[in-house]
Order: sequence, then structure tokens, then C-alpha cells
Amino acid sequence: MGLAPSSSTPEERLLSLRSSIDNIDAALVHMLAERFRCTQEVGRLKAEHEMPASDPQREARQIARLRALAADAQLDPEFAEKWFNFVVAEVIHHHHRLANEAAADEG
Amino acid sequence: MGLAPSSSTPEERLLSLRSSIDNIDAALVHMLAERFRCTQEVGRLKAEHEMPASDPQREARQIARLRALAADAQLDPEFAEKWFNFVVAEVIHHHHRLANEAAADEG
Repeated sequence: MGLAPSSSTPEERLLSLRSSIDNIDAALVHMLAERFRCTQEVGRLKAEHEMPASDPQREARQIARLRALAADAQLDPEFAEKWFNFVVAEVIHHHHRLANEAAADEG
Repeated sequence: MGLAPSSSTPEERLLSLRSSIDNIDAALVHMLAERFRCTQEVGRLKAEHEMPASDPQREARQIARLRALAADAQLDPEFAEKWFNFVVAEVIHHHHRLANEAAADEG
């Protein structure tokens, strides 16, 4: 972070920080893409084997763990939890859309 | 992704996918923490040098780029854009809170 030497101008330091943000965002998008690949596979597996769609205990453990990881990395744990809920809501939305498309295909 | 051999039971495959999701989530939280470090530094820099707080053109370029990266990684570009807006809203919220705290300290 902030690789521009402190002797550089504010504009140069801003450009340097923006380069870091752009690199981090590219990494985040690719990690999110891989996360979706995993959750889609989980969705298929659960549907095929008639496993329960949701698991509140697993979700509570995930939130507790992410809050602890966030605190350790000095990220606001509240934000980490809100962010996780946003992503999970999108996964559920996606599963419902797939289920509806499958139902429509079956007429 | 899906490292459990296809001969494993559905429960084993579910556990394997969940391990991948947990690893990815830890990576995501750490990348988010580093992104916040950068945006906090940007906030400080802009405040110190009285640079404009928002830059709609930069934001439009970021969204276009992330949508393209998402499409390439087979992540729904709509989701990538929603996700980006969620994170940016949190950054703005955070800046406002810091500004309010600073104002209260000076109050």
C-alpha cells in the first residue's frame, strides 16, 4: 500500500493508491467468481441429494469466524458481517433464479 | 474447487466445497481489509490537500473494468457492479463517520 515515496506529489500518491485499489479489486472479483463456482456446486449437490438448502449453524460459524479474521486484519467486524450477508443473499437469489429457470424448462 | 474425488459421498463433497469457501472467504476478508487501508489513505490525502472527495469519471471506469473482469471470470457482471457499489457505499459511510468524529473532537 502507498508505494509512492513520500517525497512524491499528492497527485502521484493518489495515482499510486488507485493502482493498488485496482489490483485489489481485480483480485476480489476473481475470488468472488471462484466462490460462486463453489456455491453453485454446493447448490447442485444439495438439490441432487435432497440435502437441506440452508444450514443456520454453519452460517453462524462462518459469521463468527469472519468477524474474528476481520478484527485481526483491522477491518471493522460489522462491515465484514454486512458484506458476508450481502454475498450470501446474492447466492440465495441466484439459487432461486436457477430453480425457477429449471421449473420453467420443465413446463 | 471440488477437490473431493467424485467417488466420495455427497457429505464428503459438501465438506470439501465448504473448506474451499472458507479459504476463499478468508482471502476475501484480508483483501477487503487491505482495500480499506488504501481508501482510508486516499481519504486522508484528499482531506489534507483539499482534493475533490468524489470522482464520478474514475468510478465509471472502475465499474466498466470490473464488469469486464467479471464477465471474463464467468461472474455475473450485474453482481460485480452491485458488489462494487456496496463496498463504495461503505467507504463513503466510513469517511463521513471519520469526518464527524474529527468534527466532534474539534467541537
